[in-house]
Amino acid sequence: MAQAPATRVRTGTSGVLRRLRNWIDDVARRSPARLTLLVFAAIIAVVTALLSLPIATAANERAPFADALFNAVSAVCVTGLVTVDTATYWSFFGQVVLLVAIKIGGLGVMTLASILGLAVSRRIGLTQKMLAASETKTSGLGEVGTLVRAVIIASLCIEAVLTIVLVPRFLALGESIGDALWHGIFMSLSIFNNAGFVNLEYGLGPFVGDWWFCLPLIIGTAIGAIGFPIILDVARSLRSRRRRRPWREWTLHTKLSISTYLILAVGTVAIFAAFEWSNPGTLGPLAIHERVLASLVQGVNPRSSGLATLDVGEMREGTWFLNDALMFVGGGSASTAGGIKVSTFAILVLAIVAEARGDRDIEAFGRRIGSTTVRLAVSVAFLGATLVGIGTFLMLAVTQFSLSQVLFEVISAAATVGLSTGITPDLPDPAKYILSALMFFGRTGYMAIAAALALRQRRRVIRMPNERPIVG
Amino acid sequence: MAQAPATRVRTGTSGVLRRLRNWIDDVARRSPARLTLLVFAAIIAVVTALLSLPIATAANERAPFADALFNAVSAVCVTGLVTVDTATYWSFFGQVVLLVAIKIGGLGVMTLASILGLAVSRRIGLTQKMLAASETKTSGLGEVGTLVRAVIIASLCIEAVLTIVLVPRFLALGESIGDALWHGIFMSLSIFNNAGFVNLEYGLGPFVGDWWFCLPLIIGTAIGAIGFPIILDVARSLRSRRRRRPWREWTLHTKLSISTYLILAVGTVAIFAAFEWSNPGTLGPLAIHERVLASLVQGVNPRSSGLATLDVGEMREGTWFLNDALMFVGGGSASTAGGIKVSTFAILVLAIVAEARGDRDIEAFGRRIGSTTVRLAVSVAFLGATLVGIGTFLMLAVTQFSLSQVLFEVISAAATVGLSTGITPDLPDPAKYILSALMFFGRTGYMAIAAALALRQRRRVIRMPNERPIVG
Ligand SMILES: [K+]
Ligand SMILES: [K+]
Repeated sequence: MAQAPATRVRTGTSGVLRRLRNWIDDVARRSPARLTLLVFAAIIAVVTALLSLPIATAANERAPFADALFNAVSAVCVTGLVTVDTATYWSFFGQVVLLVAIKIGGLGVMTLASILGLAVSRRIGLTQKMLAASETKTSGLGEVGTLVRAVIIASLCIEAVLTIVLVPRFLALGESIGDALWHGIFMSLSIFNNAGFVNLEYGLGPFVGDWWFCLPLIIGTAIGAIGFPIILDVARSLRSRRRRRPWREWTLHTKLSISTYLILAVGTVAIFAAFEWSNPGTLGPLAIHERVLASLVQGVNPRSSGLATLDVGEMREGTWFLNDALMFVGGGSASTAGGIKVSTFAILVLAIVAEARGDRDIEAFGRRIGSTTVRLAVSVAFLGATLVGIGTFLMLAVTQFSLSQVLFEVISAAATVGLSTGITPDLPDPAKYILSALMFFGRTGYMAIAAALALRQRRRVIRMPNERPIVG
Repeated sequence: MAQAPATRVRTGTSGVLRRLRNWIDDVARRSPARLTLLVFAAIIAVVTALLSLPIATAANERAPFADALFNAVSAVCVTGLVTVDTATYWSFFGQVVLLVAIKIGGLGVMTLASILGLAVSRRIGLTQKMLAASETKTSGLGEVGTLVRAVIIASLCIEAVLTIVLVPRFLALGESIGDALWHGIFMSLSIFNNAGFVNLEYGLGPFVGDWWFCLPLIIGTAIGAIGFPIILDVARSLRSRRRRRPWREWTLHTKLSISTYLILAVGTVAIFAAFEWSNPGTLGPLAIHERVLASLVQGVNPRSSGLATLDVGEMREGTWFLNDALMFVGGGSASTAGGIKVSTFAILVLAIVAEARGDRDIEAFGRRIGSTTVRLAVSVAFLGATLVGIGTFLMLAVTQFSLSQVLFEVISAAATVGLSTGITPDLPDPAKYILSALMFFGRTGYMAIAAALALRQRRRVIRMPNERPIVG
């Protein structure tokens, strides 16, 4: 008699699980993009609920819904825009919730969907394999399990190294072991995942000339922003026999992304330093070596750590506009960075160079880039611009801030950067919802949205006759 | 004895002419784009010199160089941004110079280059034919002479009709026959060539509710902005036998451009009316029928007449931003309008729709659009965005105006629109030179610049192996 209900419950549970699994399989098969959005939205809902608990705030009071949602989205989308001060507004529990949200967001929603699929069905089905492959963007399907493991192990290792370097820095500042550990762990994850969250009551300002803190910040951010496919590719080439010139074995994607990233970073540092060198609100009052370090940090900031040691609000309007462009470009594909991605930007530039030269093919590093890739790059860039345009238009309508401030905030959200001219805490609720939507769309990817909205995947057999309209 | 010097002079002249012809032929053969820029720059130099004469100003004083250059570029590039009031600052002679500059600019630099070639060499050589074909963008080379004639005759006819309609309007206002004629002719050319210049001392404000003036303005602007290839295509279809459904014979370019133009115009009118309906600085104080008419004028304004019956400076910041996007898109190809062109915009949208749907081909109106066309569209849009970005960055550096005002001014110049939030007369000289460069590059075409800069036209025989980088 005690057996019967237990069996029934077990049957009931497995029935629910089976139905959930079937439903996920079904959605995944019909539209992987839609599954991405659903999973992401579900995680945000859970984090918002947890942040809405009174114990999540330092004052032990229920956070307003708009703030709980905004900061949940910001953490899961590893953006770093905050309407409240992370260090003082949230309790330790609240900060733990944010940190877990950052870790989940950083691992990427597609990897997560694959892990979820594993947990539910205790096997990686073909659809899950395809999902994971499309997120980490390797061409083969066989190594998905290995890849997910590699992603998790690599990220944990790098975060551990960062923690080991940073904890002594906080201890050296006279913090207790508990505080130093918590600050070190939180900041390490925030740095590697390009999350832009800061749980230090004193902020990052004191570290503006601190090489011990800023060098790990720069390196950790850059590794996180370049993307897992490139980390794995580089690691593979370093392990191979040809040790003297490992870059010869790199894929076109790795070569293209790293070179573009470096060019943009060097350019950013130079232009930023030139523009802000004598600005009394930013670099002006600092010593020379501090100005250099602050400019180096600024080189990785726009793509897309969001961890600023200088006051962005004090920078010149021209610097803001330069950052707008850099944030829009963003970091590497399948990384913790946002934006249209450096490879997308590089392909667009190469397409124009080829067009101007009159070349038939688009070439880079001795390889040809096909027209379907160009079309995808166009779509990503165009949808990104549309997202920013509509977001700016709506934000101008619901706030009283200037276009400079609004455009910066919108691109920062859409490219999941997390820098702000300082207007975030003063935004009205409708503006918080608009930015939340931008962060969500920015992280889940413009193409996922577009694919999710499309009702059909068509392969026409009959091709229409070709006709060339006039361009430009 | 009197014969000898005359012969010598004649020989000398024909020698100079021959060398000039050979030089032009040579430049045209090696780089048509470079010839375009040279011819355009030469025309601007002449107009600047004429405007620098004391008799060009009403006060009979020499205009400052920056103003003479700026207004010369604005007229030749049919933009309409002015640093001084056209009606009161310039003399009748100065206004005639501006009107001739507008007419030459409107006919298009390539058509002009072809005519120049005719005048110099008394024949249309193959290079000139190719030049003219590439400007008016018809595929055949045989009908260039006919085409140039058609362009000139069509523009003169439309300008004559506009003049016949507008002169009585000025007479009805109590103006003298001389004033009414001059105002009618100047405004007709300004309207059809989307030049944006106004030679009325009282401005366009009094006409905000005047259907007699605004309806010709709307229709004339729209015809001028849609482009000669489409005007000729429509005219051809109307003359043909199938009179009931003439649009069936239209080319893909005509269908694509007209439909995109109409969608954008209707959308602009609706959103503008919604945004400004109760704005006390713009539509607010007007009667309902006046608000409707003013909104209709605003529907054609951003692409790219630049003739505003309302005060742009009084519009909401959101309306400015909407106009930024519309001005960037611009009008039809090979027209008097600027921007990246509606067909370019349509191709980009179609490419994204195809990408989202998973289609192999980009299709419109039962025709397939090839990947080379997409690549060209990408190049034009990307170079346009880069031009606007660099221009905005520089303008922020040399002026104290807000990003809203600067971005509006820069896009207005780069897309040769001529609308302004009112900052043009207050710009410092460096800003005037920056805007002049933007108008010049905006009118001569981004691709011409890119092609001119390219050192070689390469057709590689060996193709590199294909490799697909990750995008987005
Ligand atoms: K971030
Ligand atoms: K214009």
